[in-house]
Amino acid sequence: MTDARVDTETHAHHGYISDKDKYLNRLKRIEGQARGIRGMVEDEKYCIDILTQISAMTSALEAVAVGLLDEHLRHCVMDAARLGGPEADAKITEATAAIARLVR
Amino acid sequence: MTDARVDTETHAHHGYISDKDKYLNRLKRIEGQARGIRGMVEDEKYCIDILTQISAMTSALEAVAVGLLDEHLRHCVMDAARLGGPEADAKITEATAAIARLVR
Amino acid sequence: MTDARVDTETHAHHGYISDKDKYLNRLKRIEGQARGIRGMVEDEKYCIDILTQISAMTSALEAVAVGLLDEHLRHCVMDAARLGGPEADAKITEATAAIARLVR
Amino acid sequence: MTDARVDTETHAHHGYISDKDKYLNRLKRIEGQARGIRGMVEDEKYCIDILTQISAMTSALEAVAVGLLDEHLRHCVMDAARLGGPEADAKITEATAAIARLVR
Repeated sequence: MTDARVDTETHAHHGYISDKDKYLNRLKRIEGQARGIRGMVEDEKYCIDILTQISAMTSALEAVAVGLLDEHLRHCVMDAARLGGPEADAKITEATAAIARLVR
Repeated sequence: MTDARVDTETHAHHGYISDKDKYLNRLKRIEGQARGIRGMVEDEKYCIDILTQISAMTSALEAVAVGLLDEHLRHCVMDAARLGGPEADAKITEATAAIARLVR
Repeated sequence: MTDARVDTETHAHHGYISDKDKYLNRLKRIEGQARGIRGMVEDEKYCIDILTQISAMTSALEAVAVGLLDEHLRHCVMDAARLGGPEADAKITEATAAIARLVR
Repeated sequence: MTDARVDTETHAHHGYISDKDKYLNRLKRIEGQARGIRGMVEDEKYCIDILTQISAMTSALEAVAVGLLDEHLRHCVMDAARLGGPEADAKITEATAAIARLVR
């Protein structure tokens, strides 16, 4: 949350990301990786080299996901835990579902 | 490249991708997903929603990888198999290493 | 363990698993899958069929992992969150590291 | 196929595994890991320690899968490639489907 805006939308400006610039930079780099891979396909580079780049990009993306999940647990879920009740339980269920999608 | 190999660059213009446009479109869409996810972090959208988008993007990327690997096996590896010898063996070793990186 | 902690061993009898029998049964089934796969290799069954069984076993194992992680977040991490302080932070760091190993 | 046996069963005794004992030993170890993890749940060991063991077991299983896939490509798929025709194509399609299940 960069400014003092009174949040009226749902799911917006949660302000839970402690190092937002780090994630923005990583995602910009991932976007560049996607563009680079597209260029490799365009130029018909050697398939195995393209796959190596895809593996690297997938790892970078997973690292972002794990980082964001850490922030989420540390802030949203912890806050809910301190309040307790069904809201806390619901937050865990939601987080577990997200983890299951990442683990597959 | 089965014909006239005037190719002087290493690993360039292999021409093994039978439906190049399909892959270029998919990768353009993946690039858009990366940009969208960056926008979500920028706007501090709800973390779980961002993670859902990252999972979708990872799946799209894995589908591209498996598709490219299929093309690679179908063309480069098959060609090498028909020629036989140590070259064929080396192609399999290389493909397996790429698969191991994807499977992790 | 919220009650009578006579526990003198480290990391033993944490009592956080709400449906222990479910996990024991699932793990017994996974053990049977491992044995079945070994039998398939012994009998030199068709490789693709063995790989299908390995994929099924991996999925079963991941489901157990996600289930145990859910229990862990719901009990240990929640308890730590309510207590707060560095202990709570350390629990999240530990959970995130475990998630990273699962996601890879 | 180590001997001249006329194979009458479908998908049996393919004899494509060059180092069968290595795979049998690895799978025996994986079975032991499954048994160990079940014991940890039975004894209610610390959840994070159980998850660490599950991650190790999943990695061991993936290594077996990649190894068997390598053997399969090296033998069955190569043989089909040398024969050529629709059979070769079908083998690649089948192998790719197996890889997709492993990559998820």
